[in-house]
Amino acid sequence: MAIRYELIKECKQSGARLGRIHTPHGTIDTPIFMPVGTQATVKTMSPEELKEMGAQIILSNTYHLFLRPGHEIVKEAGGLHSFMNWDRAILTDSGGFQVFSLSQFRNITEEGVTFRSHLSGEKLFISPEKAMEIQNALGSDIMMAFDECPPYPAEREYVEESTERTYRWAKRCIEAHQRPDEQALFGIVQGGMYQDLRERSAKQLVELDLPGYAVGGLSVGEPKELMYEVLSYTTPLLPKDKPRYLMGVGSPDALIHGVIHGIDMFDCVLPTRIARNGTTMTSQGRLVIRNAKFARDFTPLDPACDCYTCRNYTRAYLRHLIKADETLGIRLTTYHNLYFLLRLMEKIRQAIREDRLLDFRDEFMLQYYGSLTPQSAF
Amino acid sequence: MAIRYELIKECKQSGARLGRIHTPHGTIDTPIFMPVGTQATVKTMSPEELKEMGAQIILSNTYHLFLRPGHEIVKEAGGLHSFMNWDRAILTDSGGFQVFSLSQFRNITEEGVTFRSHLSGEKLFISPEKAMEIQNALGSDIMMAFDECPPYPAEREYVEESTERTYRWAKRCIEAHQRPDEQALFGIVQGGMYQDLRERSAKQLVELDLPGYAVGGLSVGEPKELMYEVLSYTTPLLPKDKPRYLMGVGSPDALIHGVIHGIDMFDCVLPTRIARNGTTMTSQGRLVIRNAKFARDFTPLDPACDCYTCRNYTRAYLRHLIKADETLGIRLTTYHNLYFLLRLMEKIRQAIREDRLLDFRDEFMLQYYGSLTPQSAF
Ligand SMILES: [Zn+2]
Ligand SMILES: [Zn+2]
Repeated sequence: MAIRYELIKECKQSGARLGRIHTPHGTIDTPIFMPVGTQATVKTMSPEELKEMGAQIILSNTYHLFLRPGHEIVKEAGGLHSFMNWDRAILTDSGGFQVFSLSQFRNITEEGVTFRSHLSGEKLFISPEKAMEIQNALGSDIMMAFDECPPYPAEREYVEESTERTYRWAKRCIEAHQRPDEQALFGIVQGGMYQDLRERSAKQLVELDLPGYAVGGLSVGEPKELMYEVLSYTTPLLPKDKPRYLMGVGSPDALIHGVIHGIDMFDCVLPTRIARNGTTMTSQGRLVIRNAKFARDFTPLDPACDCYTCRNYTRAYLRHLIKADETLGIRLTTYHNLYFLLRLMEKIRQAIREDRLLDFRDEFMLQYYGSLTPQSAF
Repeated sequence: MAIRYELIKECKQSGARLGRIHTPHGTIDTPIFMPVGTQATVKTMSPEELKEMGAQIILSNTYHLFLRPGHEIVKEAGGLHSFMNWDRAILTDSGGFQVFSLSQFRNITEEGVTFRSHLSGEKLFISPEKAMEIQNALGSDIMMAFDECPPYPAEREYVEESTERTYRWAKRCIEAHQRPDEQALFGIVQGGMYQDLRERSAKQLVELDLPGYAVGGLSVGEPKELMYEVLSYTTPLLPKDKPRYLMGVGSPDALIHGVIHGIDMFDCVLPTRIARNGTTMTSQGRLVIRNAKFARDFTPLDPACDCYTCRNYTRAYLRHLIKADETLGIRLTTYHNLYFLLRLMEKIRQAIREDRLLDFRDEFMLQYYGSLTPQSAF
């Protein structure tokens, strides 16, 4: 087995899980947030900075690396770790989500998906076998099965058909996977917002005895309450001795609620994407550094934060850099946002240790959003 | 006096000067190259990276900081060092060059220059007094007198008139300068490509007994041979016990030739600007990392370089990052290019120490350009 999940304890107050995942590239403390390095780089950051802020695992995108530079080149480089100079753990997605969201033309058959590259327009094809070939070439510690992520909302009939196909594709992924001793293949539970389809999907995938499971098809535009509802009946169906991954979630409230619903792993472009236009997450909530009121504010971005950015720079300087389109500004806000979420996960783990995650949730929500039930996106 | 120049020795072979400038923010080894931090940041770099690569002094731009964020804000921050978190030396230019090169509308009178902001279109005015007010607010270690840099080519009559005005402006700068004990004001020798005008300008400015002198109005489009010719008769007119600064020069050949002609200080956006489209300076000459031939090249950018970039990344990865418009790619090429020029200056200083700068010049030119008289721009 490439990875091993160790359940350390469950929070008596919330049921949330504290654990560890042992991977070929180090041990990960869960619940964990994974910064996203789409094109073999977490945008604007160096590997040293990611380590300094405490990132234990990053996510990279199969679809993007397949298109550019091509998985063969990454393989020749000795795999993705070597190519990008990152010696900690890497999870790669399956490419499925991007094929459906980024590609203009696409044609889904039982065999796989034909699509056009969003870069060159070239006609390409990804099947479960191809997704495994690419991820085996990349050499990630955790690979994802090739799936279809149905949109929201979607008709039951479509979701049922798609979820069944995702299951058949998962079996083909297992068959095609060439390096199971070095790379762990996770299955992805689909089923949209339909409880019986989620149950069937979970049951089928669990029978395949994969080393971990993701809950896919969430955070695709549905209300957060609906996402939590789906999680509440889906995660109990997953084995206790395997890690559980909620894909594409990274707002502070959703991270906390996800953990309360039994999730161990998260990824999201949110902290890095919003940083690029100067939006930051601070101990007092969201802060838009471009705002004119910060022009003469010579205090740190977040006085409660001890990250590199907050220890060395002022809001006035950050505002200047962002307004002037200077890369250093984006580096500094990106660093802080990732640090903020990594620290949040650390606090969540501590709260689980102390059996007080529900108390922590309420304290955090009030301080960050000023409300226990925030309406804001992040 | 804010700064003190110490002449350590002159190269017996070339006459080039080895020295030190003692500033309120540390001692600078000369000849030196100054990375350019136009908007209070050396594009893409952190202060720690600049220190790690050995930068002892950086240049920042009065015109840009006047427009954004405004010198009053920088002053309130405690000056430019504090604002941008850089505790080594800073030189600020006078704003004159940008007023003439970036602003669309401009009107020069004896009093000063009216121009339109290249950002907002707003009508603004900079005089010698205003340039001093701004630079006093920024608190740079070395300030430049407000001058006009005539274009090339320019009629003798225009250059003569302009150079006389630059001299009168220099005197007004000295009058207006409020912090001579903390900030050294350099004069700028003009005179275009006319020997007698250069001689008159140098003589007039030297009589003002300023702490340092720049040779301005070069590297403005004239042939390099003409620039060297002007230097050859201008630098001997400058006092031996003051530093000499050649503005806007940063190609390897011009740095070496400039030092041979008695120059101590250089600045240029070249290494950072070309890095942004993936052009690099290596021990074997110019290397364009975007080139397809590097797609599968897993060797360092410059195998002879020991910088952060060359120690940790391959050409294939750098090419991927640059092609994919990833900021880390620009960070890594910028780091390497600056490191390359800073190391070149170190080698130049060593060659002066060993009285062999002309030999070093020939060795370098053959290795980098493959010719003693290169035609290439850099
Ligand atoms: Zn911070
Ligand atoms: Zn290098």
